[in-house]
Amino acid sequence: MALHIFDPVQDSEIRTTTKLLKDLNGDAKLHFVQIDRLDPPKQQAIEYLNVERNQSPGTPLPYIPRRTYAYYYLNKKMPLYKALVNVSDNRVIANQETPEGTIGPLLPEDMSAVEEAIMKHPIVLEEIAKLKIDTLQYKHASLGNLGYTVVCEPWMYGTDSIHDKIPLIQAYMYMKLNHPEANHYSIPLRFSPVFEYLSHKFVRMDYLPSGADEKYIRDTLPYQQMDTVEYHPELIEGYTEREGLKPLIVSQPEGASFEVEGSKIKWQGWEFRVCTNAREGVAIYDVFFKGRSLFYRIANNEMTVPYMDPRAPYHRKQAFDLGDCGFGNCANSLALGCHCLGVIKYLDLTRCDQDGNPVLVPSTVCMHEQDYGLLYLHKNYRNGNTVTTRRREFVIQTIATVANYEYVMNYIFDQAGAITVQVRATGILSTMPNDEGVVTDFSTIVGPGVTAAFHQHLLSFRFDTRLDGDNNTVVYDDYVPMEENTPMNVYNIGARQERTFVENSGYIEQSPFTNRTYKVINENSINPVTKKPVGYKFEMPAKQMIMASKNSYNVKRALYATKQFWVSKYHENQLYAAGEFTNQSQGDTGLSKWADGTESVRNTDTVVWPTLALTHPPVTEQFPVMTSDFLQFLVTPASFFTRNPALDVPLANNNFNKSVYYDDAQKAAGLPTSKSSTCCSTGKSSI
Amino acid sequence: MALHIFDPVQDSEIRTTTKLLKDLNGDAKLHFVQIDRLDPPKQQAIEYLNVERNQSPGTPLPYIPRRTYAYYYLNKKMPLYKALVNVSDNRVIANQETPEGTIGPLLPEDMSAVEEAIMKHPIVLEEIAKLKIDTLQYKHASLGNLGYTVVCEPWMYGTDSIHDKIPLIQAYMYMKLNHPEANHYSIPLRFSPVFEYLSHKFVRMDYLPSGADEKYIRDTLPYQQMDTVEYHPELIEGYTEREGLKPLIVSQPEGASFEVEGSKIKWQGWEFRVCTNAREGVAIYDVFFKGRSLFYRIANNEMTVPYMDPRAPYHRKQAFDLGDCGFGNCANSLALGCHCLGVIKYLDLTRCDQDGNPVLVPSTVCMHEQDYGLLYLHKNYRNGNTVTTRRREFVIQTIATVANYEYVMNYIFDQAGAITVQVRATGILSTMPNDEGVVTDFSTIVGPGVTAAFHQHLLSFRFDTRLDGDNNTVVYDDYVPMEENTPMNVYNIGARQERTFVENSGYIEQSPFTNRTYKVINENSINPVTKKPVGYKFEMPAKQMIMASKNSYNVKRALYATKQFWVSKYHENQLYAAGEFTNQSQGDTGLSKWADGTESVRNTDTVVWPTLALTHPPVTEQFPVMTSDFLQFLVTPASFFTRNPALDVPLANNNFNKSVYYDDAQKAAGLPTSKSSTCCSTGKSSI
Repeated sequence: MALHIFDPVQDSEIRTTTKLLKDLNGDAKLHFVQIDRLDPPKQQAIEYLNVERNQSPGTPLPYIPRRTYAYYYLNKKMPLYKALVNVSDNRVIANQETPEGTIGPLLPEDMSAVEEAIMKHPIVLEEIAKLKIDTLQYKHASLGNLGYTVVCEPWMYGTDSIHDKIPLIQAYMYMKLNHPEANHYSIPLRFSPVFEYLSHKFVRMDYLPSGADEKYIRDTLPYQQMDTVEYHPELIEGYTEREGLKPLIVSQPEGASFEVEGSKIKWQGWEFRVCTNAREGVAIYDVFFKGRSLFYRIANNEMTVPYMDPRAPYHRKQAFDLGDCGFGNCANSLALGCHCLGVIKYLDLTRCDQDGNPVLVPSTVCMHEQDYGLLYLHKNYRNGNTVTTRRREFVIQTIATVANYEYVMNYIFDQAGAITVQVRATGILSTMPNDEGVVTDFSTIVGPGVTAAFHQHLLSFRFDTRLDGDNNTVVYDDYVPMEENTPMNVYNIGARQERTFVENSGYIEQSPFTNRTYKVINENSINPVTKKPVGYKFEMPAKQMIMASKNSYNVKRALYATKQFWVSKYHENQLYAAGEFTNQSQGDTGLSKWADGTESVRNTDTVVWPTLALTHPPVTEQFPVMTSDFLQFLVTPASFFTRNPALDVPLANNNFNKSVYYDDAQKAAGLPTSKSSTCCSTGKSSI
Repeated sequence: MALHIFDPVQDSEIRTTTKLLKDLNGDAKLHFVQIDRLDPPKQQAIEYLNVERNQSPGTPLPYIPRRTYAYYYLNKKMPLYKALVNVSDNRVIANQETPEGTIGPLLPEDMSAVEEAIMKHPIVLEEIAKLKIDTLQYKHASLGNLGYTVVCEPWMYGTDSIHDKIPLIQAYMYMKLNHPEANHYSIPLRFSPVFEYLSHKFVRMDYLPSGADEKYIRDTLPYQQMDTVEYHPELIEGYTEREGLKPLIVSQPEGASFEVEGSKIKWQGWEFRVCTNAREGVAIYDVFFKGRSLFYRIANNEMTVPYMDPRAPYHRKQAFDLGDCGFGNCANSLALGCHCLGVIKYLDLTRCDQDGNPVLVPSTVCMHEQDYGLLYLHKNYRNGNTVTTRRREFVIQTIATVANYEYVMNYIFDQAGAITVQVRATGILSTMPNDEGVVTDFSTIVGPGVTAAFHQHLLSFRFDTRLDGDNNTVVYDDYVPMEENTPMNVYNIGARQERTFVENSGYIEQSPFTNRTYKVINENSINPVTKKPVGYKFEMPAKQMIMASKNSYNVKRALYATKQFWVSKYHENQLYAAGEFTNQSQGDTGLSKWADGTESVRNTDTVVWPTLALTHPPVTEQFPVMTSDFLQFLVTPASFFTRNPALDVPLANNNFNKSVYYDDAQKAAGLPTSKSSTCCSTGKSSI
């Protein structure tokens, strides 16, 4: 099968890129940090898609060469280079130094390498020695005596100065029981070395505050043993597995309802392509429902996680997990029966390593169906006749581990034309040392000597809209009371919709108390029933956006996080809300530049950027591992179709669904049944 | 098994109530509208529960007589009577006239009876005759020629005057194809008779506006045929069932993980009682998790649905679906394989009929488990070790049909101590006639000649709190930036929690942009880790509350709907937010009186009342039947436990979950597999 223009980067394309760039750079040693496919120019892609959609046998598709981009350093030194390569024709299109101070993302191997270097460095070893942990033992009830070991957790350095122009790492140091499953986040240490991460040079040793303000800094002292808070069953003292959970098996005896052909998925009227990439993890292209175009491209494009602990050096804790690392680079390999149930289709991801070789990360995306209750239901009470349909969903899932945290990204498609974007935050809180008796109003104590600071998660999604065609418009609708005591509103109960058109690029303010609803409409496509333009709405929960001051680096670097819904006109290479390069960035080179109000976005090629925000003050239930917090928004038809597009979904019945009565099931399983089983509504005799 | 104090009303208890009240009233004919169990006085109930929880064999439980209440009319005339009966001891405790003008709820049979009377009344028949539908036929492609028939939909009259003191019905009239599955909401008629509903007396004929303002009223004319918008497969013209949906079977070969004993449920650390009733549909009592008390009683206690169409008589469209009718009275009998999947336990409901006889409504509540993705997950990237648990949920579901609309109430319990209250609104929009070419800003055209007005759904929930004991306190936490450029906030990124105690009964204003979080805490129970009181938080989405003017009857009757979160001190018989009697009520006799700021609610027996609101401007996709709209809020531990209470949940594995690869499944089902199947990550050979 020939490659599709959106298919993920191939091994051979990474190799071609590497070879061409090595050839170009002579004797220098190239240190790659990212090589991936670049989308084709949109206009060419649209022509390709239009031909493909109406293709008669034998019609050739337009030729579009496949392109890659590469970020790399020479001899592990600044500057960072960026190259574009035509891998179809073996040709370097462009290769240039990035502007002074531009720092690229890191590969997992870069992290491991600097971690290893830090753990070997004499100054760090000297600090570790002061802990005097060699002689300490922890007596574990079932595992016996366990020693301790030290763990290094390198963090993006962040920014607090215009002079931070070399690639740095702030290493947070932890101790843990000497066991592979031990939770090091339970014992944060009080020293934090800073290293250059390309050269592995020691820069300085920071000492961490552990009191109510940043003055409480002290030298490294011998470790005073405290109980650790463990998450693994092997290590939890007195662990007893919870009883009573019986298997719940999702079986699909006739196979899945979706069809997969390469990156193309078809399911219940939906058609789209699902393609992995290193930075975003996954992107969804060319989305149609019931034969009508909705979106050209959908992806989560950035997430920033600023911490609100004001004490240095914590003020620099602000990850940009996509720009600094990449959700694809950090993606988990998903496993059958763990990450989703039923009949599962997995997709792999290919990224590069530091030498420019392809690395296969298997099964970073899983796709499956799930049942989620009722789709619609109506009973005519006059005759008892009922229509009931069940809600089947198609889920695209990918999971990134970014050191302590896990992010579960779910794109959920329903049978009625709606998409739910659902993010689950799980994993482990990033923790800090805390002195006995210290209670602050910016962090939560989560265990002995350990605290977790308030922080935020701010995710940007990018929807390149294509509702019924290439020209779309963004509006927002408010719902407001009518003027009181007027002829039209005698009883003072009237309310109406007030529509505002977004004329120029920019953002829309939140307004939950007028039920403000963001909509993408097509002014050229009128719904014959409503007589108004067709549209889709974005139903976003009203949320606190980034809390830091506009004078802080946190905000300067992530202006996108100040607003919930942005609108820009489509331009090539405007993909990432905080800009292309976020690591130690001095400012936001993304949305705030592209959506600056200078361009008309009415009835044109429009892109919308929802920001999903969560203010996260930790609670004890979130340690030592946190139950998923849910964040989600809906993208749903708003008078796009002339009627419910799911009227053709088959009605529910038990021949198909094969559910059973509790009492019968318990009996079949040899269990005692409830005493009321004989008087239930099935009319069975009690004999 | 002896009856528990919270067990639903029994047939014999209804019969006893009826007999005692008939005896009391001599020759008068009693017309009952509600007989149900009354909760015991709380202090007695708490004593009972405390003994029960610590019961040693042989210890007797305190004796608490079971009580019922009854609403009835004598000889189908006002006033409404209310009685309390001790059904254990066959004794009428109280029996009295309600205050002048008090109108009781209706039974389904009352609705059917008035509907029948209206359809027989000469004045109504005369209007129907003017439609001249006898000679009309609709040529249906597959069903052949169908005639038309007229349908009456009685509505609660509402209120627009202090003189509305007799029980009235506003009948909205519709036409439909003469077929049992036809959608009458597609052809709203333009006349609307008003009847007294006890005496079935004609009051007057209203004519409906169908233009941009209420002046466009016209006489009934012969019906001009238009296409109807049908939801049933048999009637949809050109219907083709959607293809490709394969069975997805939830099987539980070892039975369910929950235990049922009478009304008592145990599941994964949870213990509570689930009891049906006529007004609320279902209430949940005595809720414990992992041996600790959380709530004494949880229920949805009211819902109002005001319409914002200002044109008379629509200004009176404001249902109080619990107070006027009862979610239990309107409950659907749920069916295996339709309303939920897996191993299902059903509960029945018993209500009274107008003669005071018990009526069994089977299976109004279904209880089952579902899988909903990941509970928590963490991967230690250094060694690849992962802990993964799946999220199993226990769902209590009931569904009410209130004429056009269906409300699906789900109480969802997870394995980590959280409750999700999820409401799905489905069914059919209440529609109005619309003249050709008329487009308004307060309604949406949903088909030929038919429009649906903007409206709101405002549900009140009542949580009688009992966190770690009987005395609780309500607080709200805001998250606010620290003052800039201070010694504590040098980098201008700091933020902190600001806690406010609710000292007196009242409400909390919404404040999403400070991430305001409502919490119930117990000041007498300090979390040993955080050193702060234990608590649970209510995570409510910020929403527009009732939009009507405070000078409108809509608001006067439903003051609870003006605020999202109310706090009151517990008192007997304060159960329903808009008051005990809502039908044609002149004002709110509920929360606004009980939470008027005059009582201390600090560290006492506290009740909280979340209001879940949805502003609903219809879209065409919601006709002729609407895909469920979701509304939900979370009740989740906020440093109530010392650590994640779900650490004992078994780790996920495929021996338990038995999922399969897409490619293997399609092959097993005899389907062609995707072309990439041989290069997937399982390492299978491609031969």
